[in-house]
Amino acid sequence: MATSEALHDRFQRNTVFTVRARIDERIDPKSELVERIGATGARISELTTLDLTEGPLLYEMTLFTSGDEQMAKARKAIAEVDGVEIVEVVDLAMESHVGGSCEMRSRAPIRSNTDLRIVYTPGVARVCKAIESDPSLVRRYTNIANKVAIVTNGTAVLGLGDIGPVPGLPVMEGKAAIFWEFARVSAEPLLIDTHDPDEFIAIVEKVACGFGAIQIEDVAAPECFRITRELDAKLDIPVFHDDQHGTATIVLASLFGALKRTGKKITDIRCVMSGAGAAGTAVADLLMSAGVPDVVLCDRAGAIYRGRAENMNPEKEALADRTNAENLRGTLTDAMKGRELFIGVSSPNIVSQDMVRSMAADPIVFALANPVSEIGLTDACDAGAAVYADGRMLNNALAYPGIFRGALDADASAITLAMLTAAADALARIVPEGELLPEMMDPDTHRAVAEAVKDAARHG
Amino acid sequence: MATSEALHDRFQRNTVFTVRARIDERIDPKSELVERIGATGARISELTTLDLTEGPLLYEMTLFTSGDEQMAKARKAIAEVDGVEIVEVVDLAMESHVGGSCEMRSRAPIRSNTDLRIVYTPGVARVCKAIESDPSLVRRYTNIANKVAIVTNGTAVLGLGDIGPVPGLPVMEGKAAIFWEFARVSAEPLLIDTHDPDEFIAIVEKVACGFGAIQIEDVAAPECFRITRELDAKLDIPVFHDDQHGTATIVLASLFGALKRTGKKITDIRCVMSGAGAAGTAVADLLMSAGVPDVVLCDRAGAIYRGRAENMNPEKEALADRTNAENLRGTLTDAMKGRELFIGVSSPNIVSQDMVRSMAADPIVFALANPVSEIGLTDACDAGAAVYADGRMLNNALAYPGIFRGALDADASAITLAMLTAAADALARIVPEGELLPEMMDPDTHRAVAEAVKDAARHG
Repeated sequence: MATSEALHDRFQRNTVFTVRARIDERIDPKSELVERIGATGARISELTTLDLTEGPLLYEMTLFTSGDEQMAKARKAIAEVDGVEIVEVVDLAMESHVGGSCEMRSRAPIRSNTDLRIVYTPGVARVCKAIESDPSLVRRYTNIANKVAIVTNGTAVLGLGDIGPVPGLPVMEGKAAIFWEFARVSAEPLLIDTHDPDEFIAIVEKVACGFGAIQIEDVAAPECFRITRELDAKLDIPVFHDDQHGTATIVLASLFGALKRTGKKITDIRCVMSGAGAAGTAVADLLMSAGVPDVVLCDRAGAIYRGRAENMNPEKEALADRTNAENLRGTLTDAMKGRELFIGVSSPNIVSQDMVRSMAADPIVFALANPVSEIGLTDACDAGAAVYADGRMLNNALAYPGIFRGALDADASAITLAMLTAAADALARIVPEGELLPEMMDPDTHRAVAEAVKDAARHG
Repeated sequence: MATSEALHDRFQRNTVFTVRARIDERIDPKSELVERIGATGARISELTTLDLTEGPLLYEMTLFTSGDEQMAKARKAIAEVDGVEIVEVVDLAMESHVGGSCEMRSRAPIRSNTDLRIVYTPGVARVCKAIESDPSLVRRYTNIANKVAIVTNGTAVLGLGDIGPVPGLPVMEGKAAIFWEFARVSAEPLLIDTHDPDEFIAIVEKVACGFGAIQIEDVAAPECFRITRELDAKLDIPVFHDDQHGTATIVLASLFGALKRTGKKITDIRCVMSGAGAAGTAVADLLMSAGVPDVVLCDRAGAIYRGRAENMNPEKEALADRTNAENLRGTLTDAMKGRELFIGVSSPNIVSQDMVRSMAADPIVFALANPVSEIGLTDACDAGAAVYADGRMLNNALAYPGIFRGALDADASAITLAMLTAAADALARIVPEGELLPEMMDPDTHRAVAEAVKDAARHG
């Protein structure tokens, strides 16, 4: 559990600053600063000497903090040391987003008038005519077979809620950057300024002809279900909602890892979930399709069961029909009793140690609420959790780049549960000893996902 | 006129092939092949030896041809030479569009989990929240201020007509590549599958929030006028229709060059135009705004005048109101008599030598119909044209990259006639001696346009 605890500790500090300071050469920054900064709750992760030429030395340090307030304390702690002068504090997240995180470039230089006449008129007319007479050629002679639209209306951006599409743009650009870096997919943010699901669907339908696949992103539930379902039915290219399908894939991959670690079998896993939104619904469906025999979903009104009247909608009626084999009623506390697996995609701090203790022996706890989970690592493990993960350890970026790479390479017309299961399985197969998920920065991780998805698309 | 003639000659051969052939070492390809290929009408522009190791030498030659038929003849001519064996014939235009001509990339590498946590969640949340509380920050913390949508419904792609948006995609990608190469603008093709101008407008309106400017591309007249006008009125970002505004800018720049060469003054120029579509209308407006005192536009029914009944629409009614000072009636032949400037944006071979002879002394003839112009170079010059250009010499790619660069850098809310005039003026000021327009491949060309447009946007 050592790695996870270190990870967990690191993940509590999400706001990263670079501090540049001149420090008198008689002072040892390690002994003078590290402890003072640590006392504020912040952590120094790097300390570099920038300028050794004369007088006080210029140091650069990277600080992980929980936010502005902690940074203000750390800044004060640094400035209070005699002989230390802060030159600059840079907010790394803000700084690194200046100018955006993705851009559309030419794939080849235009060095001559001949190049120009080939990439554009008159040479390009030949390419257009070829596609006009054989539409399938568009996949060869344009970038379309590698092009994903990241479409949002900004109604559920991260944990920030309905902030609108424009403030959500940095997330879409970040996803595009990840698509490129991890899978060489060309992904374009497409913001749609509407709250009307029908208008959203109609617009995506009209512009989808320019893309090889659609990633629906940060659209609120329950609208996201119908949007994804209808677009998937109407379009002959893959439609993927990361908050549903990406999350479900990562949860299933982690479950595979947890099963290995605990020696449990998937057919023995009875799951209880807190949260019946986009993620919860998709996770339940994928888990059941992978062999989990029973899932009970709980929302604020408790277990969702057939015949429940309170707090229902058509999506939940359908959920009640296909989950909760024993048609269990009651609160989340009731539903957790004796279950092997808890998955939370809901609200902070709603699971107590007693609730974990009421689960089956060596329970698996995935408490994924963001930014604060349903129950913390220490509490869960002290109460007997054999495997624990929170939302910061389970990152969709492990899944979606490879899933799209595989789907595009297979010229798939949809992303099926079989493809998601293949992706989860591929991730689980390459997990290093003692970890739940494989290494994000390893290109082999994304390659393994892509290969598995491509195979599943072709033969699944 | 030597340069122009060479250009003209080159421009007749639009289809470029690379031929690889093994040639017996005793044969001199220059003496054996150049003449034979020339006799078919094709031209060799490059001849390179690829492999000198053993036996017959491997040569690569680039052939400019008028199309497949001429290439077949050239291929036959090459193959007929004893000791020559063709290994491969590559269609360069098709080949260079494989995989498309643009792609969306990350602006910075993602090398570590820290990088990932900054570009994406959780770090990106900070950027979203900042934009939510101050929407103007979106220009700094995303790529939006550098992002152009190239929007088309494919109803008037090049000279190919209504081939639809998907077969038109290579043109949009080519434009995006040019945007990047000449002006470092991030431009994204956006295909809209509709023939309904209202739907087109509604969709662009809903997705415009994600872009810094809109380039309308290859949308047929007369719908393009209302689309451009309404979007320009509704959106607070620049809306530019290249077929109108880009063409008008290049024509005005060429006119400035032609005036210098002929010693004429713009206020003495009475212009006759053939073609009253997107390009014709915009050219007329820009010329008049730049000081041309009279423009008569002709369509198939002859001069457009106030009170004409035949072949009118609301756009032409409005044109009649603001052009044709003397309310001239009659055919194009009638309208050309005594005029200093002819501009054709219409149909092939509709202007005779006699018609050019009927113009004022030392007339300027821009015969821009594509791919075959209203009158050819030799005919026009033999009939007395002092300056001649056809559509292949006047390339919009000289204008639009710099125009958008300047408009985006100035944070302009529209692209005005003053900005287009400034662009044309900037182009005219840097024309090399004896040319009509400056060098496309020179970065200074696009920089000069951008600077002039930015100035005009800020002070115009």
